[in-house]
Amino acid sequence: MAELKNDLILRALKGEQVERVPVWMMRQAGRYLPDYLKLKAKYDFFTRVETPELATAITLQPIDQVGVDAAIIFSDILVIPQAMGVQVLMEEGKGPSLPNVIKNQQDIDALITEGAEESLKYVCDALSLTKQELNGRVPLIGFAGAPWTILCYMVEGKGSKTWDKAKQFAYTQPQLAHQLLQKITDITIDYLKAQIRAGADLVQVFDSWAGSLSPSDFKTYAQPYLVQISDAVSPFAPVILFPKGTWYAIEDLSKTSASGIGIDWTITPQQARAFAGDRVTLQGNFDPSKLLAPIPEIKKAVKEMIDGFGTQRYIANLGHGIMPNVPVDHAKAFVEAVKEYRPH
Amino acid sequence: MAELKNDLILRALKGEQVERVPVWMMRQAGRYLPDYLKLKAKYDFFTRVETPELATAITLQPIDQVGVDAAIIFSDILVIPQAMGVQVLMEEGKGPSLPNVIKNQQDIDALITEGAEESLKYVCDALSLTKQELNGRVPLIGFAGAPWTILCYMVEGKGSKTWDKAKQFAYTQPQLAHQLLQKITDITIDYLKAQIRAGADLVQVFDSWAGSLSPSDFKTYAQPYLVQISDAVSPFAPVILFPKGTWYAIEDLSKTSASGIGIDWTITPQQARAFAGDRVTLQGNFDPSKLLAPIPEIKKAVKEMIDGFGTQRYIANLGHGIMPNVPVDHAKAFVEAVKEYRPH
Repeated sequence: MAELKNDLILRALKGEQVERVPVWMMRQAGRYLPDYLKLKAKYDFFTRVETPELATAITLQPIDQVGVDAAIIFSDILVIPQAMGVQVLMEEGKGPSLPNVIKNQQDIDALITEGAEESLKYVCDALSLTKQELNGRVPLIGFAGAPWTILCYMVEGKGSKTWDKAKQFAYTQPQLAHQLLQKITDITIDYLKAQIRAGADLVQVFDSWAGSLSPSDFKTYAQPYLVQISDAVSPFAPVILFPKGTWYAIEDLSKTSASGIGIDWTITPQQARAFAGDRVTLQGNFDPSKLLAPIPEIKKAVKEMIDGFGTQRYIANLGHGIMPNVPVDHAKAFVEAVKEYRPH
Repeated sequence: MAELKNDLILRALKGEQVERVPVWMMRQAGRYLPDYLKLKAKYDFFTRVETPELATAITLQPIDQVGVDAAIIFSDILVIPQAMGVQVLMEEGKGPSLPNVIKNQQDIDALITEGAEESLKYVCDALSLTKQELNGRVPLIGFAGAPWTILCYMVEGKGSKTWDKAKQFAYTQPQLAHQLLQKITDITIDYLKAQIRAGADLVQVFDSWAGSLSPSDFKTYAQPYLVQISDAVSPFAPVILFPKGTWYAIEDLSKTSASGIGIDWTITPQQARAFAGDRVTLQGNFDPSKLLAPIPEIKKAVKEMIDGFGTQRYIANLGHGIMPNVPVDHAKAFVEAVKEYRPH
């Protein structure tokens, strides 16, 4: 394996001194990039995800085109339900749907929890190929969905504003919910370890719908499984936990085995740092919609963001995935603004 | 006017001692109530809103049927765009749509900002009739949408997960955004004052999409207009501000002219109280999805919630509107649990 020429993100995650703030963008591969849209027009979603050459090509696009400090493998969090034997459909522009939702003990008993490395071999192949193509330019990020977020989709069957069916399942059948969360946790740990063996330098766990829960329910249904994953995986590579919308958990999570915590834009950088101290690396938290602002406004807001977080123990990123309607120049301006940052 | 037999909410808002915690539920009139569904089957949305006898009947249903400590007038926040001359369509099950969105100076110049009392006379008539029918049983709540939330609909034209068009409008044309926010503020102040003259004992301002903004943008585009409204209206009746998703603003807002702050369920009661102190009455913050839990779980969670907030300077409520799929018995159990509450 080629030695890493740019290991800023890895050093930031270890709490080592960095000469400048590293930067990448969630969903940086895909959505808004013209070269991605060309591939999207030719191949359907799962073909893009399951064909290592395509996934690799998509993963690499933003490295040269936008100049980010890490690659994140092009894939989807719903490959885990698939690996567990649950059908996932993806209709362009409509979001995912899972026709056979989890309702009872029998449904949970039928789930597959082993063999992630084989069933998701195409992800590992894409990681190996990407790692090779990167040739040490930047680190490679693997990822998975968090158990609560995956449960949301497996119970609800599609996206939701409130996730009330998923929550009703947890509130009325808590034992089944915990069984399901544990099964997702187990296979996710295997999957993330396999990603690291295949070439991922670090991994991120996306708990996109954690913010639907109250702090008490987050502590019951989300946090323990995030911590289990972090504890099991962090001996092999740094782990970033991103439970979106859970500002109240930053302090607790800063005391776990996770090296990084992703945060969204509904908290000031100063407040997030006050919760986390220097115990953990913070990642975020630029409002993705703000990439639609004029470029000078983007640059000003990036500067204020880094002023707030500080340049150490920090990875600049968005507070959620980049949106399809962002002009590429604006994404570049965000990355450039981070690279140009000089403290007062 | 009949004297109020139950003024718990008004006393809680003034910071006076109450013998038990008052309770009501956002969206308590409508949605989940069988008697409402019968009227819904017969009359379309705006007929229900614009016919004082129907609005009154719907407003009164939960008072006897669920036992809440206040009535909130059945209406909609989008009557303000209508009064400003903007067309609003409501398709059952699909949410609102505004075919002619605000794009430029000309669109803003064309907006009507005067005469709310005349153009929204049907709301005032419904308030007067409801006040009469209530005959002093419980206080009557008037309401309006907050300027940021109304701007969201007027610019976006329909509901959105991210409100990125509304935010893009604000980020790229801030002067126009502030003009529009000011116009909405002006007519909303007149409208709320008219509601109070017509019989509302207190008013609530719903900033349902405030949580889409960063703390810095909330301070720019939402908070100043909320405070303007509160300052102008609070000499006439207590004002509750409910900027959903803005836990970080609780402390600032507790120092304004508002008597109450509504909060959602993504903060612990203890933390909310720590931010607010006893300067203001807190209202909330039961997760609406938790009304789908078994009744004993609802009662346990209500007890924990009140333990956290304390019994004074507090109004029990949900953290957002009640959902259509909540069984009436569960809504009643929530209200009963508040009424049965005894401190440790």
